[in-house]
Amino acid sequence: MSEVMDQLYRIIDSRLKEMPEGSYTASLAKRGKGYVARKVGEEAVEVVVASLTEGKERVISETADLIYHLLVLMALEGVKPEEVYEELRRRMK
Amino acid sequence: MSEVMDQLYRIIDSRLKEMPEGSYTASLAKRGKGYVARKVGEEAVEVVVASLTEGKERVISETADLIYHLLVLMALEGVKPEEVYEELRRRMK
Amino acid sequence: MSEVMDQLYRIIDSRLKEMPEGSYTASLAKRGKGYVARKVGEEAVEVVVASLTEGKERVISETADLIYHLLVLMALEGVKPEEVYEELRRRMK
Amino acid sequence: MSEVMDQLYRIIDSRLKEMPEGSYTASLAKRGKGYVARKVGEEAVEVVVASLTEGKERVISETADLIYHLLVLMALEGVKPEEVYEELRRRMK
Repeated sequence: MSEVMDQLYRIIDSRLKEMPEGSYTASLAKRGKGYVARKVGEEAVEVVVASLTEGKERVISETADLIYHLLVLMALEGVKPEEVYEELRRRMK
Repeated sequence: MSEVMDQLYRIIDSRLKEMPEGSYTASLAKRGKGYVARKVGEEAVEVVVASLTEGKERVISETADLIYHLLVLMALEGVKPEEVYEELRRRMK
Repeated sequence: MSEVMDQLYRIIDSRLKEMPEGSYTASLAKRGKGYVARKVGEEAVEVVVASLTEGKERVISETADLIYHLLVLMALEGVKPEEVYEELRRRMK
Repeated sequence: MSEVMDQLYRIIDSRLKEMPEGSYTASLAKRGKGYVARKVGEEAVEVVVASLTEGKERVISETADLIYHLLVLMALEGVKPEEVYEELRRRMK
């Protein structure tokens, strides 16, 4: 079960609303959507390199980083996980 | 609820085992892990560009593409979604 | 001697001004700066994958693709090669 | 005239041979080809984001970063600039 993604999205979303001091999510948002988008691209490159040269443990860690930054970008865009799942469901048919 | 990701992962994993004719997942795998990794990187670039110039509908569509290719790469690596969720859970603490 | 880059830039720049039928450069520009930026990102991912899994001939070919698309993006931005060389020269000091 | 690229390539190539203390190029090489490839991918993402959200000065700076890291990767691969120019020349015909 992957409620973890939905739960993480809700935490991110609340950080973006409350912008608490010391929150990494809030610090990303302060640098703007361009910066968060850049992190998504960079983390994907790290997944690619981990997969081709490093091995499973690094792939797991970099994939988690990518998903976290992707959820931050989605939250900034007002895209809910359910909207992405719906799109994925459509493709499974 | 995001069982959709786990369900999609299981479908992908079974395609990789059975490699049925006409399956897009199987055709990706035939081109090798380097090709799948490349698709992950390229789809992430499309998320970045969609986010910065296109708008919400395109972000949803490109994010779904990215997640699908990421799940294929994970399956090729033998990384289970639960292993990535575990890593995400650790970071939420 | 790399006059080839300056010469290619001038050809690209003239294609962007004249937008002739059948020119690949013109067809890229018609799809907009976001599309050209996306191609730069995607070609870079292909250089990464070529370097880590394919070998020298593919690195040469993908690097040429990346430089070509980078020159198109620069021309669309009004950035001249000399401005990038100047920046590189500053870093060599 | 872009002798600057050839000159920078020769400096990089000599750093890779001599690996002097305090050289950034040497420190990149010590981290391995995977790391340099990753930097190429990341710098390209920065060019994309600069182009779509930041403006000309940032595009110039990020393009210079990308070309520098690309030259380091080429030197590690034993790819000479002339080989890439030759490929670009072929495409101009």
